[in-house]
Amino acid sequence: MAWTLAKLAAHVNGRVLGDGSAQIDSVATLADATDSQISFLTNKQYKPYLATTNAAAVIIATEEECPSNLLIVDNPHAAYAKIAQALYPVEKPAPGIHPTATVHESCTIHETVQISANVVIEENVVIGAGVSVGANCFIGKNSQIGQDTLIYPLVSLYHSTLIGERCIIHSNSVIGADGFGFAFDNGVWLKIPQVGRAVIGNDVEIGACTTIDRGAIGDTIIGDGVKLDNQIQIAHNVQLGDQSVIAAQSGIAGSTKIGKYFMIGGHTAVSGHLEITDNVVVTGKSTVTKSIKEPGSYSSTIPVEPSNKWRRYVGRFKRLESLSKRVAKCEETLKDKD
Amino acid sequence: MAWTLAKLAAHVNGRVLGDGSAQIDSVATLADATDSQISFLTNKQYKPYLATTNAAAVIIATEEECPSNLLIVDNPHAAYAKIAQALYPVEKPAPGIHPTATVHESCTIHETVQISANVVIEENVVIGAGVSVGANCFIGKNSQIGQDTLIYPLVSLYHSTLIGERCIIHSNSVIGADGFGFAFDNGVWLKIPQVGRAVIGNDVEIGACTTIDRGAIGDTIIGDGVKLDNQIQIAHNVQLGDQSVIAAQSGIAGSTKIGKYFMIGGHTAVSGHLEITDNVVVTGKSTVTKSIKEPGSYSSTIPVEPSNKWRRYVGRFKRLESLSKRVAKCEETLKDKD
Amino acid sequence: MAWTLAKLAAHVNGRVLGDGSAQIDSVATLADATDSQISFLTNKQYKPYLATTNAAAVIIATEEECPSNLLIVDNPHAAYAKIAQALYPVEKPAPGIHPTATVHESCTIHETVQISANVVIEENVVIGAGVSVGANCFIGKNSQIGQDTLIYPLVSLYHSTLIGERCIIHSNSVIGADGFGFAFDNGVWLKIPQVGRAVIGNDVEIGACTTIDRGAIGDTIIGDGVKLDNQIQIAHNVQLGDQSVIAAQSGIAGSTKIGKYFMIGGHTAVSGHLEITDNVVVTGKSTVTKSIKEPGSYSSTIPVEPSNKWRRYVGRFKRLESLSKRVAKCEETLKDKD
Repeated sequence: MAWTLAKLAAHVNGRVLGDGSAQIDSVATLADATDSQISFLTNKQYKPYLATTNAAAVIIATEEECPSNLLIVDNPHAAYAKIAQALYPVEKPAPGIHPTATVHESCTIHETVQISANVVIEENVVIGAGVSVGANCFIGKNSQIGQDTLIYPLVSLYHSTLIGERCIIHSNSVIGADGFGFAFDNGVWLKIPQVGRAVIGNDVEIGACTTIDRGAIGDTIIGDGVKLDNQIQIAHNVQLGDQSVIAAQSGIAGSTKIGKYFMIGGHTAVSGHLEITDNVVVTGKSTVTKSIKEPGSYSSTIPVEPSNKWRRYVGRFKRLESLSKRVAKCEETLKDKD
Repeated sequence: MAWTLAKLAAHVNGRVLGDGSAQIDSVATLADATDSQISFLTNKQYKPYLATTNAAAVIIATEEECPSNLLIVDNPHAAYAKIAQALYPVEKPAPGIHPTATVHESCTIHETVQISANVVIEENVVIGAGVSVGANCFIGKNSQIGQDTLIYPLVSLYHSTLIGERCIIHSNSVIGADGFGFAFDNGVWLKIPQVGRAVIGNDVEIGACTTIDRGAIGDTIIGDGVKLDNQIQIAHNVQLGDQSVIAAQSGIAGSTKIGKYFMIGGHTAVSGHLEITDNVVVTGKSTVTKSIKEPGSYSSTIPVEPSNKWRRYVGRFKRLESLSKRVAKCEETLKDKD
Repeated sequence: MAWTLAKLAAHVNGRVLGDGSAQIDSVATLADATDSQISFLTNKQYKPYLATTNAAAVIIATEEECPSNLLIVDNPHAAYAKIAQALYPVEKPAPGIHPTATVHESCTIHETVQISANVVIEENVVIGAGVSVGANCFIGKNSQIGQDTLIYPLVSLYHSTLIGERCIIHSNSVIGADGFGFAFDNGVWLKIPQVGRAVIGNDVEIGACTTIDRGAIGDTIIGDGVKLDNQIQIAHNVQLGDQSVIAAQSGIAGSTKIGKYFMIGGHTAVSGHLEITDNVVVTGKSTVTKSIKEPGSYSSTIPVEPSNKWRRYVGRFKRLESLSKRVAKCEETLKDKD
């Protein structure tokens, strides 16, 4: 369904430079857009495409040379998000329980809920209005799912898991599995029952193949508005603050408590039993092994070099102690010479 | 079901300091426990809570000032595990094959086995007494599952996989998928058929979204009592020794043979074709590229620093060669001066 | 089914040294092979087994002392792949739609396709000849799957995903889930609709629990012949060139464009918005943060050391700035002394 540029501008409190009656039906990149599409500029890297784009309009922060109509807003990224949401509305789930689903009679499922084929739901589960549960999902007993949450196919929620409202959970993620807890006893590992829960706030998005373990004692808690990418591991009893954003393949070990607006790049590891304050950023592939009390950006990222050069670097690194001693000896000799 | 503290103490060969008739029905942390709950102290970090806990009893190694009853044992962690197992007994599976399951008629399934909804089991599978197979699992032909093993929903076992007794396999893990084997031939990659199996010992726990590949030739072998966290990758023909414990998101590349009691932190990578002796520990986020012949602890973990400081470190690191040359020149000059 | 050695040799354009009439029915390692099995030597590490193997024949590049018949070829690895493929032919799928599958009536499914139990296929999906879809898979609407592709159980393909011909997709992988795109707006994260697709070429193999996200705008594109190991993450709008090979637990961040024959070791991370030319190799556990214009091998792998030694290394590393200043001071003093 097409919107006029003027209507889209009103939707995001923006200003049109050009023809507000232009009809827009979809989004595209600057390079690929055609004359019924809207694009945006937020990353300077793509600025060269501005001069030659065929877009009907470009969302942008400041006036620039461009053959297209401009939609000027303070925050082009946010405006783009709102416009794309308007042009691509999420389908309402089709209410009803598929005949192949297996739902325990004790469950409380709102009449507007969509339960897809082969879903299995154990006893005493409560599911709020407007929820969609994708094909072949499993929901363990005593779990609760808040309204308007969207669960994609093949998700496993273990028993007693709480999911907030308006969450999105992608395929093959697992929430509420046992945390990794064992006690060593006479040469073997004893399993420590994991008796807490996984409790997920509102407006949380959880990527594909992401795992959030239940608490060992007490709960694992994911705050409101948290966004987790694919293949993230959240261990037992982690507390992750509101609006935190974690990129793919990162992991947080057990019992670490993290404040709001934590942002970490991909492939980053955070040790267990730490406390991390609000507004901490960690760059990709880093390792956090101590608590962080000061907001700011932290790194231990090491970028690649050509392999032959890299091998020399590592060699030098491992001879640092000897280098240091040689410097000390020079200093000593110089002192002697005074 | 509540136990008296005296009965719990007898169960773990411990000694009560205080009221052995106290009724205990569940576990909790020192901070959260109420007067029908038992807690424990194993991590010094939590010792301050000892003075103010409301727990009915605390499991502990030595006598300490504490308002609660104490249960004194040599190994509080192991005693806690045993007590939690007693207070939270695992439910016996309800025997029977769910009518929506698809089980090949050639299978041998003990009468006490629980096969949940939508499980698919191919021909000639053998499943021992007391096994529970969760909803929507897949079990390939010729696989065998030992008695009392618990498989959570949405697990995929490829054909000819062997699982031992008393194992626990968490949701969305995949056992016996093809190893990653290709031969380069005239510009394209040829698939090498993976004709071995995945063979899992007894008392093994396998986390959610963990993958254990079948052997290329011969088998991938996981020893007895091994505990694997979530999102671990075990490649083809790895042999992992008994009682090894691997934290989340670590991986072991193909054909590496590892002894008993291997312990590795999260996000650690072990290269292929290595041999690692018994009793090796590797700290989190490390990389093992050579065989290890000596027991002990190994690391290449690099903890974060503030990003601006970190960038300077990396700059210095990459100029180490020049620094080293400058030191050599100083040494030369000093020698000349003698 | 057994082949004679002569027939296998003809199959791979090789030369027999010994008895071409030897019957061979399977493959094994040099150490384990019996007299009806063929083995191979490609890794020097295993050369000692050559003298004592009981194999019926050994595939090898040059004549060597060996009690077995030899099959001499230019590329033993490739010849082994072809011979193993011949001895272990892939089973043809049994055509038909299982009665428990839920397939929308609007789909176009070739009569030779196998749809296994509990598969759910939404509207307008097109599936080519000879495809096999494993148990409990989900295929979203408007997706297309090319002929002779093999999809193992529990795979989730989101809507509008395109899969080429002769692909293999392993269990619990997820293709076409939303990319990780959010815009920050007044303290909360707005979801950016992910309106592109995931487009997978021909002859691609995708490992277990691997995730390939759909494009944000435009498509995520995986080239022909690409091989992805388990637990790999490919973010939105990545373009990955033909015949690239990526080992387990590696990830490529959004919008990065990569040429042909990219090869990366396990646990490696590639940042977003980069361009990487053809024929680049990155060793395991490395981090690529900048575009790469020159073919060749790149690394930032750091191998383990004993932990006590390692801690000293890290300490020295973090004092490099001070060491560097001390060297400068020595240089200064020496200059003064001239």
